[in-house]
Amino acid sequence: MSQLRKDPLVGRWTIIATERARRPAAFVDPQSTSTDQKQCPYCQDKTSPGVYEFDGVKVINSSNPILDDSKPFQRRGQGLYDVCYSYGSHEIVLETPLHIANMADLSPEQIKTVIQTYALRMQARRKDPFIEYILAYKNYGVAAGSRDIGHSRSQIMAVPVLPMRVKDKARGAKQYFDEHERCLFCDMVSQELKNRERVVVENEHFVVITPFASRFPFETCILPKNHHCDFADGIAGHEDALAAIMKDILLRFKIGLNDPAYNYMIQTSPVKDPLSFKESYHWHIEVMPRLTRVAGFERGTGFYICPISPEMSAAFLREVDIHA
Amino acid sequence: MSQLRKDPLVGRWTIIATERARRPAAFVDPQSTSTDQKQCPYCQDKTSPGVYEFDGVKVINSSNPILDDSKPFQRRGQGLYDVCYSYGSHEIVLETPLHIANMADLSPEQIKTVIQTYALRMQARRKDPFIEYILAYKNYGVAAGSRDIGHSRSQIMAVPVLPMRVKDKARGAKQYFDEHERCLFCDMVSQELKNRERVVVENEHFVVITPFASRFPFETCILPKNHHCDFADGIAGHEDALAAIMKDILLRFKIGLNDPAYNYMIQTSPVKDPLSFKESYHWHIEVMPRLTRVAGFERGTGFYICPISPEMSAAFLREVDIHA
Repeated sequence: MSQLRKDPLVGRWTIIATERARRPAAFVDPQSTSTDQKQCPYCQDKTSPGVYEFDGVKVINSSNPILDDSKPFQRRGQGLYDVCYSYGSHEIVLETPLHIANMADLSPEQIKTVIQTYALRMQARRKDPFIEYILAYKNYGVAAGSRDIGHSRSQIMAVPVLPMRVKDKARGAKQYFDEHERCLFCDMVSQELKNRERVVVENEHFVVITPFASRFPFETCILPKNHHCDFADGIAGHEDALAAIMKDILLRFKIGLNDPAYNYMIQTSPVKDPLSFKESYHWHIEVMPRLTRVAGFERGTGFYICPISPEMSAAFLREVDIHA
Repeated sequence: MSQLRKDPLVGRWTIIATERARRPAAFVDPQSTSTDQKQCPYCQDKTSPGVYEFDGVKVINSSNPILDDSKPFQRRGQGLYDVCYSYGSHEIVLETPLHIANMADLSPEQIKTVIQTYALRMQARRKDPFIEYILAYKNYGVAAGSRDIGHSRSQIMAVPVLPMRVKDKARGAKQYFDEHERCLFCDMVSQELKNRERVVVENEHFVVITPFASRFPFETCILPKNHHCDFADGIAGHEDALAAIMKDILLRFKIGLNDPAYNYMIQTSPVKDPLSFKESYHWHIEVMPRLTRVAGFERGTGFYICPISPEMSAAFLREVDIHA
C-alpha cells in the first residue's frame, strides 16, 4: 500500500510508492524503455476503454498508480510523524493515437483537444470532497523524468493534501493582493509587456515570458492576459489561443535547443475554498527545458543559480524561426 | 555583473550568473570536462596561495565566482521586482593534494581536516555583517551537478539573503519548539533510535537515518545526538566521530550503489540572530545519492514521489559490507 508522508519540519508531502517499489538494485542499473512503435503500449492499447475519450485524445488510469481512491481517505499519526493512505487519482492523457513523441509536432487542433481534456478531467475530479489539488503536467524525455520518449502523453494527479509549493504560491499571491488590492500576475503581465525584454511571444489572450528570477536556462511561463484563478474555467473561449501559443513555445524549444527534454506544469488555484483565491490567484503554465542538473547548493537552500540571464534566454527564443 | 533576483510570488532568490554566462548554444551541446590527472587544474595548482591551508586541505576562491564582496551590498527595486548585486563569497575546498575523486576514499583524518576547515571558514565568513547564510556542500559526479569527478572538493557559499528552504526549516523548527518546548530534531533522534527501522548506522555522537518522508531513494540525514543549532560550534570535540560516520555512509553509497553521484549539504542555523534559533534549530547534514530525475510533478508542486520506502533503503544500506 502506498503512503503519503509529511515531513514534520517543513510540511512537505512525499508519496512513498511501495506498491511499485523497485528493488534496490534496480536503481543502480536502471532499464531503459524502448521507444519503438511496435512495442509502444500506448499504440497497442486500441481496445481497452478509457476514462474519457474524444477526438483522438484518450485518458486512462495509470497501470501503475501511485494514488487510488479505492479506500476512504484517513490521516493518522506515527509518533511525531503524519501519514495517510495515498488517496487520489493518477491519470495518463494519451494526446494522439499516432506514435508521435513531441507535443510540438501535434496540430494546434489536437493540442486544443488535450487542453480541453485537462479542463474536463479537472472539473470531474474536483467533485471528490477529499481532493485538495489537481496537477496536469508533462514529462518529455528522460532528463525530464520520463521513462521513454515514444508516445506523446501527459499526466493528471489529484491529491488529498495541498502541496507545499502550491501553498507558497497561493499565500504569496494573497499577501500581494491584500497589500495592493491588485493581482500580482496582472501587474507582472503589464510590466513585462511594457518592458518587453523578457517577452518571448504573445497573442491576443496569452504572453510567454522568461521569469525575472528564472531558476533554469530558457525557463518560460505562459501567462493569460485576462485574470482568472482557475485553469479549467478560465480557458473558456481562449482554447485556440492557448493551443497556438503552446505549440509555438514548444517548437522554439525543439528547433532552437535541439529537441531538449522539457516539463510543463499547469498551475491552477487550490480546489477548496475557491472564493478566497478568486481575486488574488492567476492561473499560469510553467514550461521549462531540462538542460542543466540541480546541484547541492540548490538542493540545500532552495536558492538557484541560473547560468544565463532571462533577458538573454528570451532574446534567443524570440529569434528562433519556427516556420523554417 | 551577476545579480541576485527575488521571485515576487514565493520569495525565492536566484543568482543570475551573467558574469560566467554561457552562450545559448553551450546548453545544447555541453562540453564535458576531463577527469585526467594531467589536466586537473586542482593538481596543477601547487603554488598559488589559498585563502586557508592546513594539512593537505586548501581553500581557494572560485576562479569563476558567482558571488563577490568587492562592492557594498545594496538592494533596489525594478518595478515590482527586487534585485541586488550578488554580494558574498564562493570558496572551493580542495580536500586532498592527491587526485582522488571520491571523498569516500579519503582517510578519516583527512575528512576530519575538511570538517574543521568548513567550521573555520564559516566562523570567519560570518563576521561579515552583510552575510545571512553560509552553506557548505558537495557535488560529486555529473548527475549531482559537478562538471567532472576528477578531484575531491566541496564548496562554501556565503550569501546576503536568507534562502527560502533555510527559512522554511527554521520556521518549522521554531513552531514545533513553541508548541512542545522541545526540539523537533531531538525528538526525531529519540524516536528513530527506539524504532530503528530507518537507522542506517550510529556511533557515540551521531546517527544516520533515512528520513520518514524521504524525497529520493537512499536519501539519508546525519543527525548529531547532542543538541546544537550551529555546525561550526557544535562539532567541537566530535570531529572524529563525524568524520568516521561520513566516511561510513559515503562508503555504503560507493560499494552498495556502484559509485553513484551524490550531494551533501550541511544545514546549520541562520547567521543572524543566533539566540532565536539556539533552542529550536538542530544542525544536520543531508546526504543523498542522485539516482533518479526530478519530474514535472515534483517541479510543479514541491510534492515528491519516492519509488522505494525509506525503511527498505535503510535496510539495504545497513547490509552493505564496507570492510569487504
